[in-house]
Order: sequence, then structure tokens, then C-alpha cells
Amino acid sequence: MVSYEPLRGMQDYYADEAQKIRKVETIFREVVEKAGYSEAITPVVEEFELFSVKGGEELRKTMYVFKDKGDREVALRPEITPSIVRLYLNSLQHFPKPLRIFYVGRVYRYDEPQLGRYREFRQAGVEVLGTESILAELEMFHLLNDFYRKIGLKDNVEFKINNIGIYRKIFDYIKIDDNLQEHVLHLLDKGKINEFYSTLERIPIQNSKIMDLLEILTKNGKSVKIEELIAYIDKIDIPELKIEIEKISLISDVLSSLGINYLIDLSFVRGLAYYTGPIFEVTKKGLPFSIAGGGRYDSLVEIYGGSKTPAIGFAIGIERTVHALENILLRKEPVHLIAVITLDNLAIKKALEIASILRENGYVTTLNNKDLSLSKLISLYADQGYTHVIIIGKKELENEKVTVRNLKTREQRLVNISELIRVLNSDMQAN
Amino acid sequence: MVSYEPLRGMQDYYADEAQKIRKVETIFREVVEKAGYSEAITPVVEEFELFSVKGGEELRKTMYVFKDKGDREVALRPEITPSIVRLYLNSLQHFPKPLRIFYVGRVYRYDEPQLGRYREFRQAGVEVLGTESILAELEMFHLLNDFYRKIGLKDNVEFKINNIGIYRKIFDYIKIDDNLQEHVLHLLDKGKINEFYSTLERIPIQNSKIMDLLEILTKNGKSVKIEELIAYIDKIDIPELKIEIEKISLISDVLSSLGINYLIDLSFVRGLAYYTGPIFEVTKKGLPFSIAGGGRYDSLVEIYGGSKTPAIGFAIGIERTVHALENILLRKEPVHLIAVITLDNLAIKKALEIASILRENGYVTTLNNKDLSLSKLISLYADQGYTHVIIIGKKELENEKVTVRNLKTREQRLVNISELIRVLNSDMQAN
Repeated sequence: MVSYEPLRGMQDYYADEAQKIRKVETIFREVVEKAGYSEAITPVVEEFELFSVKGGEELRKTMYVFKDKGDREVALRPEITPSIVRLYLNSLQHFPKPLRIFYVGRVYRYDEPQLGRYREFRQAGVEVLGTESILAELEMFHLLNDFYRKIGLKDNVEFKINNIGIYRKIFDYIKIDDNLQEHVLHLLDKGKINEFYSTLERIPIQNSKIMDLLEILTKNGKSVKIEELIAYIDKIDIPELKIEIEKISLISDVLSSLGINYLIDLSFVRGLAYYTGPIFEVTKKGLPFSIAGGGRYDSLVEIYGGSKTPAIGFAIGIERTVHALENILLRKEPVHLIAVITLDNLAIKKALEIASILRENGYVTTLNNKDLSLSKLISLYADQGYTHVIIIGKKELENEKVTVRNLKTREQRLVNISELIRVLNSDMQAN
Repeated sequence: MVSYEPLRGMQDYYADEAQKIRKVETIFREVVEKAGYSEAITPVVEEFELFSVKGGEELRKTMYVFKDKGDREVALRPEITPSIVRLYLNSLQHFPKPLRIFYVGRVYRYDEPQLGRYREFRQAGVEVLGTESILAELEMFHLLNDFYRKIGLKDNVEFKINNIGIYRKIFDYIKIDDNLQEHVLHLLDKGKINEFYSTLERIPIQNSKIMDLLEILTKNGKSVKIEELIAYIDKIDIPELKIEIEKISLISDVLSSLGINYLIDLSFVRGLAYYTGPIFEVTKKGLPFSIAGGGRYDSLVEIYGGSKTPAIGFAIGIERTVHALENILLRKEPVHLIAVITLDNLAIKKALEIASILRENGYVTTLNNKDLSLSKLISLYADQGYTHVIIIGKKELENEKVTVRNLKTREQRLVNISELIRVLNSDMQAN
């Protein structure tokens, strides 16, 4: 027999729970649309290679991969950024840059399920393609801050920030190739500091200051002041490196002036292998997972065979954001529920017309289809929180009227159909 | 190298194309929420058995089925009704009946792609669980009619209607078991009339009137008048059969009185094997596919091991509805696009604040991140259809002002930040 539970690590959402998901999606949509972003909807199923090219070592192991009936190796997307880059390369290259794109959709990871980690979950995100300006970084923080403000979490969230560009420039300087860069960054991400250093030790590094710098960076970002770091960097003559550190400095200044909570952590690395510049995550105190994250990925379009197109983006975890909201979100507006009851098949047409009118005027209106006595129906709808029932029988039909019963006051009266909305509106205000 | 195209039979949607999808979803959502329906969100991936139990012969062949890493045989859902029934059995049985549930989501069929038939597509639908009242059927037609009216298609769509209950009652009477019922209904659905009759001929049928009746039904529904059918039925003494025909009759009366275009077709059968009563499809002239469909399925909950729970529902094909809309939908409201340009890094904070204010007041506002001269930026934004640029440099910062340039009139003036919205609003009205 089929199990009634969803598959392990997947979730059903009904009524209030579904509404929370949709509320987060709607607020996200409002924020980004007002900031000039256009939506992209791409398939959940993609060629496996789209993700394996540059998915990060962790992603590959945890993907849903299978052969379709046409013997293609396909995957359920573990994230949406690669699809957006594919879409860009396929059909958006002629648009003026920067392109501002947003998406909202489901993603899949075959992880061990735990709090905040599901096998099917939802992400809402943006990608900005075709700009290397630091203003794009600031736009990301600004959008995220607007989103969390609107959703009611502004004072509860903190941004964790680093710049992978610092590591990239150091590694470029000591001539570590891209594959090895990814590998050592992955070690850092996983907290494998000893392996990180033992791997680097195998490379002839000409400059002892570089190793000292790496030690400063990886030790504990929290205790390093940016000004101290800049002073240290001045001793090493790598101009590209200085530029990367100044980016952190500017981000820091602007976030401070906007009153955004943030933390610079120079040892912080994200799981995805394609980041090249500033990266960030949003966390909420008390939660053991980040609720959003992103960064700059200036090489990804090229890796897929396109021309150099600097880019940046972020993704919000929708379930995680709902989780972070707990009781904060969704004071529900009171809903006025009305049931329309027909006492005769001849009244059905009129009942449907009246239901349409009530709905147009904002009332949630159901059509009774229970075959019970009127008195039973009245107490049943009262029990279910309905405020009114509208009753239509032969008598009402003949006179172009309906009977309106207020289930709270138990008042009942015959009302002209043309006056129904006015009567209900004033009745609702009285309550 | 990875292909830039989506997988065969799957679609990307961007900007206007994505908006059409979302518009259809939003209107659907409004219609059903106002009618008292609550949303269910269920996973795209389900146990394969959930669909194979009663998916209909066609569905099985065209599903995405694979083993996950835990060796479960799973499938991408080809429709959402089985998941809703699973959800109901898992956690909604204690809710008062009837339960009104809606859903909006992606479904998957490994079909040969063609116009209106994709391997990934979207459905929006409802299920009403726990009522056998014919009022539920009428509610389905009413909701669909409201939806197509709101979307601008009311006069273009037609409902095709039958009642599978007529066949079921005939088959029950001549003692054809459920499996064989499905098989012969499937033959009828595929237009294999000869096979349909040759299969029935193998069964000893006691009553020649029954065979005559089946011939009337299957010949061509369009030419059979319901009154004639009722007269014929009166010669056969099967009360359950008469009840089923009277349902068609009542539906017909109510749809006529509501001015809904419809067609009774007694030979019409739908692909899904679980229908037991009235079924319907919505078509639009000139389109070779239906754009919505549904029906009553009183046995499905029982087939999954639940207690008898009569139910009915429908699903709208979102892409197909967008297709049916062609040029009707989406006269886009004019959007006022504004770009905020900073002339100095010190102005970034102010620029972000002003962008927030503009967005709160309904203006789509982008933050310039192009490093070009102001005159180049101005002509570039004018070319892209922006109506205004807001310029902030040191001079503006010092005076708590911004420069507002109307890109159409080329007028430019210094405005107090506190008066910015008022100035823009009056400028927009003047244009």
C-alpha cells in the first residue's frame, strides 16, 4: 500500500502553512520587481552536466540524478543560478547590461534531512549579469535588507561577509591553478584547516609574508580589523589584493551607515565553487543555519562557454525564512466567511450569481452542498466560524430577495438583492 | 559542452512570458480563495506507486520514473490529484467536510512534445473532498466560468460535458468488473469503437436494450437530445441510471440559465481512469487541445485505503490557458522606470535610501552601477525607456537635495528630498 507520508525529507504544506510560504514569496517578488528585476522561470529538470561543471564538491554527491526515457543524464536542480546562466547564454545576451533577473522555485538535494534541511525546498533569488561594479554588491545587501525589513525580521538578522577575491588574488599570485583553488577553498569551507595548510605546503611559495597573511585570514576573521589588514597588505606589493580588501571596507562603511547588522569574517567560505569576489550569508540568532546567501561569480558565464560576464546574485531559503519568522509573521487579517444555502434546485442559479457578487466584494463565500435541515446547517456554519449565511428558497426567489442571517447576533432578515452588499458591509462594521 | 537550450519538451520563460504564467496563476488564486478554498503544496517527487495505483493506462507510459539514492522507486508527478488525496489521508481527515483544496504547480509527462504539450508544464486546480452533492459539480462550472471571465476568455470558451456515471451504472448492471470498465472506457477515450464493442461482445449481456443504449451513447453525443435519452431510459428499469442522466439534465439547465457555452457529448471519456460521475473539459475554438478538465472521482480515496469519500475536482492547464489568451491578456500597465545615479561613493548611502522611498511609492527604481559619464548615462537610460533619472553628487548631498531629470522633457531641477515624491507624482500626471 502507498504511504500517506510525503517522501523522506519532503514536506506537505496546507492552508496556514502554505500561506506562509506564499507570503514570503509575495514579499520577495514585490521587493525585487520594484527594483527593476524581471522573472525567469526555468525547468526543475536540467541536463546533469549543467550542475556538474561547477557545482562544488558537496553538490554533486547530493543531487537527484537519473536517466530519462531518451537516455539523457538529467538532474533535479540543486540550485537555480546555473539555469539562469544557461538561459542568459541561450537567449538573453542581446539585452542591455546589467541584466537584473529574479526567480522563485523548488530545488532538490539528497541530504540527510534535519531542521532547516529538506530534500525538496524553495529558493527565491536574484542574479545581476554584466556588471563588475561594487554598487551591485551594495544593491544585493540593500535588497536583502528591504526584504527582511518588510517581512518583519530586520532587527533579528545579521549579514556575514567575506571576499573570496582576497583568497583568489593570493592564490593567483602564488600560481595555484583553478582546480586546486577550489579544492583548498573547499577545505577551508569544511573547517579542515590542517589539510588546507598541508596542501599549500606542497607548493613552493616564494613569499613568507603570503603565508603569514593566510594565517591572519584563516585564523578567525572576527578578530581581524580591516584597517589592520590594510596596513599589513601595504607591506605586500599586490595591487589586485588591495583592491579586494578595499571592497570589504566600502561594503562595511555603507552597511554601517544604513544601520544593517553585519560581521566581517575573513575565514568564511561558501560551499559553491564558483564564487570569485564578495560573498555573504544572512543568519538569525539561535538558528543553526543561514537563511540566505550569495556572492559574486565573475567566471561562471565563461566556464559555460560564454564571453566574460561578471555577475553576482543571492538566494533566500524560503522554508528557512519561514522558520526564522516563527510567530513574528502572519497576523492573519480577519476573514468574513459567508455560506450561500439553497432550499430548492430552482434557487441554484440565483445562489451562484450571489456568490459571484459577494466574492467580487471581497467576501469569502462558499456554496453549501450539504443536504441537511436548515437549522442544522445554521449551527454547523456557526461552529465553523462563518459570520453569515444567505438563504434562498422559493419565497426569496419570487420576491428577488434573500434571507440574510447573522450567525453571531442570530438576527435574520429579508433583504433586496440590490441592497445585499450594503447590508452586509454595515453589518460587518457593526461587529 | 552543456547545451544552452532547456531539455526537449521543457520551456524557459523570461520577463513578459513569465508574467503571463504568473498572471494566470494569480487570477486563479483570487477566484478560488474567495470561494473558500485553501492551498495545498505537495512535493513534485512522490512514490511511483501513488500514481501507478490508478493513473490510467496512458499516464504510466509517459511518466518520469527513477530510483533515488535510497533505492525508492519515485516519480515526478504527472498530475496533482493523487498527492492531494495522499495529503488528505495523511493529515486532513479530521477537517469538516466538504474540504475545499486548491493547488498550483508543475507536473511532468514524457510525451512527444508538440503545441500545447510539454514535458514540464503547470496546472492550477481544485479538489472538493467529502460531498456527493450535484451542487459541487455546479460549483466547479461556476468557478471555471468565473476564472475564464476574469481572464478575459469567457465568450471564447466552451464546456464539453458527459457523465461517466452513465457508463459505470450500465457496466455495473451487466456485471463488468472495475478493471474491465477502465479498459473499455480507455478504448472509448482513444476512439477505438470497434475494439470497445468486440470486448463487450465477449461478455454475456442479458439485455438487448442495453446494447442499443450503448450505441446511442457512443455514436455521437452531439446529436442526442437529453429528453430523448430520458425517454429511452424509461424503457429500461435501472433507477441508478436514471439518476445519472438527470444529473446531466440539471447541469444543462443551470449552465443555460447562467449563459455558459456548453456541449453535452455522451461519447466523451477522459484519459484518467478514476472518474466515476460527471466529467468536463474546457475548450477554445481553434485550439486542438482542451485548456482545463475535471470530473467526479468518488472511489479514489477508497482505492488508496481510506473510507468512502466522494470527491470532485478540476485542473487548468496554465500554459494552455496562456496560449488560448494569445493577444487578449495582459495589456501591460505603463511602468514608470527611474534610475538613481551616484556621482560619488559618498552618495551611495543616500542613493539606497532614496531608492527605497521611490519603491515604497510604487516606482520601479534601479540603482545605476555603470561607470560612464553622466551624459552617456542619461542618453542610455532614455533609450531604455526610463522616464527619470535621479542624480546625487557632492553638491546634492551637502544640501539634502537631489537632481531630478525628466528624460522626456529633458527638464532638470534640484529638488528637496522631502519633496521628491510629490514632484515625481505631479510630473508623471503631467505626462
